[in-house]
Amino acid sequence: MTAKNAFYAQSGGVTAVINASACGVIETARQHPEQIANVYAGRNGIIGALTEDLIDTSQESDAAIAALRYTPSGAFGSCRYKLKSLEANRREYERLIEVFKAHDIGYFFYNGGGDSADTCYKVSQLSETLGYPVQAIHVPKTVDNDLPITDNCPGFGSVAKYIATSALEASFDVRSMAKTSTKVFVLEVMGRHAGWIAAAGGLIEDHDMPVLVLFPEIDFDQERFLAKVKAMVDAHGFCTIVVSEGAKYPDGRFLAEQGTRDAFGHAQLGGAAPVVANLVKEALGYKFHWAVADYLQRAARHLASKTDVEQAYATGRAGVEMALAGESAIMPTIERLSSDPYQWQVGKAPLSEVANVEKFMPREFITDDGFGITAACKNYLLPLIQGEDYPPFENGLPRFVTLKNAPVAKKLDVFEI
Amino acid sequence: MTAKNAFYAQSGGVTAVINASACGVIETARQHPEQIANVYAGRNGIIGALTEDLIDTSQESDAAIAALRYTPSGAFGSCRYKLKSLEANRREYERLIEVFKAHDIGYFFYNGGGDSADTCYKVSQLSETLGYPVQAIHVPKTVDNDLPITDNCPGFGSVAKYIATSALEASFDVRSMAKTSTKVFVLEVMGRHAGWIAAAGGLIEDHDMPVLVLFPEIDFDQERFLAKVKAMVDAHGFCTIVVSEGAKYPDGRFLAEQGTRDAFGHAQLGGAAPVVANLVKEALGYKFHWAVADYLQRAARHLASKTDVEQAYATGRAGVEMALAGESAIMPTIERLSSDPYQWQVGKAPLSEVANVEKFMPREFITDDGFGITAACKNYLLPLIQGEDYPPFENGLPRFVTLKNAPVAKKLDVFEI
Repeated sequence: MTAKNAFYAQSGGVTAVINASACGVIETARQHPEQIANVYAGRNGIIGALTEDLIDTSQESDAAIAALRYTPSGAFGSCRYKLKSLEANRREYERLIEVFKAHDIGYFFYNGGGDSADTCYKVSQLSETLGYPVQAIHVPKTVDNDLPITDNCPGFGSVAKYIATSALEASFDVRSMAKTSTKVFVLEVMGRHAGWIAAAGGLIEDHDMPVLVLFPEIDFDQERFLAKVKAMVDAHGFCTIVVSEGAKYPDGRFLAEQGTRDAFGHAQLGGAAPVVANLVKEALGYKFHWAVADYLQRAARHLASKTDVEQAYATGRAGVEMALAGESAIMPTIERLSSDPYQWQVGKAPLSEVANVEKFMPREFITDDGFGITAACKNYLLPLIQGEDYPPFENGLPRFVTLKNAPVAKKLDVFEI
Repeated sequence: MTAKNAFYAQSGGVTAVINASACGVIETARQHPEQIANVYAGRNGIIGALTEDLIDTSQESDAAIAALRYTPSGAFGSCRYKLKSLEANRREYERLIEVFKAHDIGYFFYNGGGDSADTCYKVSQLSETLGYPVQAIHVPKTVDNDLPITDNCPGFGSVAKYIATSALEASFDVRSMAKTSTKVFVLEVMGRHAGWIAAAGGLIEDHDMPVLVLFPEIDFDQERFLAKVKAMVDAHGFCTIVVSEGAKYPDGRFLAEQGTRDAFGHAQLGGAAPVVANLVKEALGYKFHWAVADYLQRAARHLASKTDVEQAYATGRAGVEMALAGESAIMPTIERLSSDPYQWQVGKAPLSEVANVEKFMPREFITDDGFGITAACKNYLLPLIQGEDYPPFENGLPRFVTLKNAPVAKKLDVFEI
């Protein structure tokens, strides 16, 4: 068997641990030089493949690759670029195969969410058709935790740990201030369609904190919401509200879309948090504070879940091992064997069943009133945030790695995307 | 010498380490039972003293008091309640002395910022006049770092570490995404009058991140700001903007005050971050993300600076030791002996020189163009964020302490505040 090169790319929004998957892919590949000659990474994701802008990872030291395990973000650059359907844009898929052929690439590792699973699947199919078979493996990544089949997605556990910890800390703060000042704290979290991240905020209930969660899956009922806030403040003197950026009214409008205009008449882009905070203020008069975590939550490698880091690395490693075992058109998955004690193993799912399927919060994970999480949900979430895995610090700040990202010499004509 | 009781209260906005100061006060007091019989804490700050709502800290175990060291927020409750001047409201000051007398309190430890230093000073003066002398010690606390004389304020180092780390992590994220997506990330931080917290964001410049800081001390110049953002994005492909909540236009209006109205005509409370992000979008067309850290930053005990925790504890301990040595009307301070290696000791300042003085960023800490921090500023900031001091975690989340906060039996008539 002649050694082939591998291609690896990061896709979509990055996470605190996607580089841990990259680390798993590259370290494992380096252990099999007889089968994988080199790993080329796409600069800025799949765009790097289309434009033949490849990064030669062999230029990186073992220490630099090891440091990816504790470096957030996408070390090779990511992109938001969804390939159109095979029918609509066969040209791009054919270009991918052309680039793979030119650089003797036999393995395609694509690290992303639902869209990239779809791309990965199509590459595996088309490469067969075009007579240059490429083993295409999708390595799962998404803070949104919305991929099917896998019990959870690498990237999610760390953001869940960050949101639960931050909500807990801020709730301690609000509790201190509530007598004469802030009574309601609103924290906006990511999750445009699925409420998994918001659900993590609900975990602080078991730390005696009154918390109310607004999920994208549950239509916002303003009257019932305000009654619940009032009941919580009456009972506890304060409350914390965790609102998903995707929370919406029954008519489908996001809470964040208020049609507000600034002094110049421009549409004002706001968040859901200030909207919710102002609603509470108007109706109940409570002093509030609000925060929008945005990128802080998904970049917070300093508070990563050890479990998440291990799973991110393991799915990267498993992807390579599965490829070496001859597999293609699959995604390594996390299989939960038991919740308490938490035991898991790596499984696999066919990409045909992964691509373009979104997994939402099951209704039984949300309390009947729609404002909290159930015991079943806590049982699901808690294992995923277990353990700490602090990055090294130097001179007060985390010591992350920035790779050299040396280019591979181009062999093909320019391709316009 | 007969043992007297001590009174301790937390004032104003809480921090990640104000409880470490409480820990320093109570642990040190417990080591001197011959002089300090018991420490009574004010429930919700000075309001607890006025209403004779005292907490008996002797009911708390040594372990619970030790756990204060790693628990954010104010364990006894804080309040935003500024006593009026002695002339305008002598009644409240006299009530304080009355309560202290009724509970045999000879020591007053007040843990707060500039306003509470003023209250503390007045208590020391009035108690002499009224013939019931109380030794009044102000223990410094503020994330804003705006107290005079002391080199820095306990509470600031931790928020600085959090903001610098978060800005660094988010900058890694944006750098990954910039090719096809987000090019500008805006992070709003606290500091209504002084730009110390915003300055901490400037530290990431030395980690090769293009960063631009908007200080309250520098009038916002929209044209120069946009030119600087464009230059950074042209040079690096992205940039991070750290904006203080107190950033303002030359006419004194805060950036956050946009006079925006929602669909119902209500004034819309927004933050400075979305305003800045939208300005950039309108003028330059860059895709952006923004975050408002709000309480997350000052509650983030999970990322406290070890230096800050040590200084918070040390000033609490020193306050008690100074009181036992007969001092009054003073505040323990942090004296910097050298920056590299960082060496410090506890000093003291007379409250007459502390009360109602605000310390702003010196102009020489801000770059000539007004958008960054100088080497002198970095030299000042870096020692304050050194070291990590992680709280214990249990089942995925920090294990903080919630005290019993048992009340002391009241002896006086009700007092209306």
